[in-house]
Amino acid sequence: MDNESFRTIQSLGRGELIEELMEQGSVSHDFVVQGHGDDSAVVKPTEGLQLLSSESFMEGVDFDLTYVPLHHLGYKIATAAVSDIYAMNGTPQTVLVNLSVPNKLSVDMLKEIYRGIGAAGKDYDIQIVGGDLAASHQLLNISISCYGSVAEENVIYRKGAQLGDAICITGDLGGAAAGLRILMREKRFWEEQNKQQAFQPDLEDYEQVVKRQLVPIARKDFVEQLADADILPTSMIDLTQGLLSEIRNISEASEVGAYFYQAALPIALETRTVADEMKEDVDKYALYGGEDYELMFTLPEQQVETLADIFSDFTVIGKITEQDEGIRMQQAEGGVAVFDERGNTKD
Amino acid sequence: MDNESFRTIQSLGRGELIEELMEQGSVSHDFVVQGHGDDSAVVKPTEGLQLLSSESFMEGVDFDLTYVPLHHLGYKIATAAVSDIYAMNGTPQTVLVNLSVPNKLSVDMLKEIYRGIGAAGKDYDIQIVGGDLAASHQLLNISISCYGSVAEENVIYRKGAQLGDAICITGDLGGAAAGLRILMREKRFWEEQNKQQAFQPDLEDYEQVVKRQLVPIARKDFVEQLADADILPTSMIDLTQGLLSEIRNISEASEVGAYFYQAALPIALETRTVADEMKEDVDKYALYGGEDYELMFTLPEQQVETLADIFSDFTVIGKITEQDEGIRMQQAEGGVAVFDERGNTKD
Repeated sequence: MDNESFRTIQSLGRGELIEELMEQGSVSHDFVVQGHGDDSAVVKPTEGLQLLSSESFMEGVDFDLTYVPLHHLGYKIATAAVSDIYAMNGTPQTVLVNLSVPNKLSVDMLKEIYRGIGAAGKDYDIQIVGGDLAASHQLLNISISCYGSVAEENVIYRKGAQLGDAICITGDLGGAAAGLRILMREKRFWEEQNKQQAFQPDLEDYEQVVKRQLVPIARKDFVEQLADADILPTSMIDLTQGLLSEIRNISEASEVGAYFYQAALPIALETRTVADEMKEDVDKYALYGGEDYELMFTLPEQQVETLADIFSDFTVIGKITEQDEGIRMQQAEGGVAVFDERGNTKD
Repeated sequence: MDNESFRTIQSLGRGELIEELMEQGSVSHDFVVQGHGDDSAVVKPTEGLQLLSSESFMEGVDFDLTYVPLHHLGYKIATAAVSDIYAMNGTPQTVLVNLSVPNKLSVDMLKEIYRGIGAAGKDYDIQIVGGDLAASHQLLNISISCYGSVAEENVIYRKGAQLGDAICITGDLGGAAAGLRILMREKRFWEEQNKQQAFQPDLEDYEQVVKRQLVPIARKDFVEQLADADILPTSMIDLTQGLLSEIRNISEASEVGAYFYQAALPIALETRTVADEMKEDVDKYALYGGEDYELMFTLPEQQVETLADIFSDFTVIGKITEQDEGIRMQQAEGGVAVFDERGNTKD
């Protein structure tokens, strides 16, 4: 990038900069009385309960700017924030965006991040209503707080899973983990070539999994279908930490156990291909790999068919058991794995 | 600190850690249906409009752990967040806390931060309802989002200042800037002594200004008095960036000018003493030094007396003028300074 096109953040006044950034958002809700531009945003509460969630991403830990395009980064953190609202069966409405920005980022790079948040805003119908912009010495930090609403009778907690309920998962698992493996391999390759050219990995064969890692999509579609079908899962959670960790969250909150089938884990073909290439166990991607942003939910067994009639992109992986049976997995090759608190097999 | 007492963050499970941290908060509101522990917090909206604000603090830029005690850091960022709610004439209710935490911090150090947020929670009557906890390579980042409410007829924006209104400021200015000077001087001294002992500066003579820097207090008291007196300022803003920058914010939003008196700037004796020691102009602390977290507001002149009858800790520094007159200051030694967009004098 030539110097002329690198507008430093200091070259604009704070107010001017925020104006330029905010223009990247295109959603404007009636219930937002005052967006950015005052000390606080002012919002007329809509009917029902309010939902509040937030996500924090730190450069070098949660993302690597070598291979994460800035607008994807913006999209992804917005996805992470709204996903928590969908996991309560809610509708996201507004976000506050906090950025701590090092000098290595230009105004236009910052705008790219906001362009990504703005694109997510359009997809999820959320308005950016403010936030904070601060300096940082070296590393970029982004946190997003998301607000949403849900009718009082429709809120779904982690704590409602009942004995005998089917454990269901939207979409497929392990894709984001597989995508990360590919991106890290390409980065290593590039570093071994002494970074002789710009980082332009050939990712064509891995398009789906790389997309799952870089621009995951929150399951707005599923929550909308639930409303249409008038079906209320007994519990729900989004898959950010890997399946096992989230099954544990549901079982602890609901005071139940879980029994599921390894052979039932929904895993895409491309995810399997990546694991084969890496000589790794693909089920580990599903069990321990995070960032899939799919929804896991529990449902009385008799409602599974009704849901399947109107929404097909989900899989039953097992059922809710008594609490003292713990978390167990029927292995594909026979035998049952029992998991401890940390998600490791006990035997 | 010996190793035995240094509990690493990795030594606890994520859920366990969050439980320990959340115990530092003591406020529990009826309208919070679900605090931390699910995908989102769930809150019953109270009457009136909702207010949303957030603040982000990055280590090395917004704070220096050499001289900032962790519980003070927690208190201060909570103050910064609620201050934005008070600046709208609102009542803060809940906060989400996002932390990106490097390994150098132990569990107990993290708890200290939460203890500070918890203490602020008690003072400002806010409940910690969740947030996010992420790893960081080197530097600590904290962001807090705060939610509050205000009756529709009582919300005060930046945009309402009227020609002839008195410009008023609670408390005094420049104290936080003076405190920062002292802390930085002590740190330099300690570094020159090759850090031979733990950093234990003698701050006794500077207690007030150091406190203004480390544990500033948001003006809840003023907002409560306004309600009691049934007085509604025409505009209001909190002083985080320095007086001039905030006067500009009010004048831009309200499309007015401002004329104020250098001699009227409320500056505490200890702040003056520090400036004298540093051979600096104390008015610069007031005009450009930030983080005072006082409130600036505009009020029809005839209401100033009424307010003064019930609340004495404020000063009239000038009045609102026509927009084309810009922002001007009657200097103590005679003459008038005119400020440009960046807050520099034009002549």
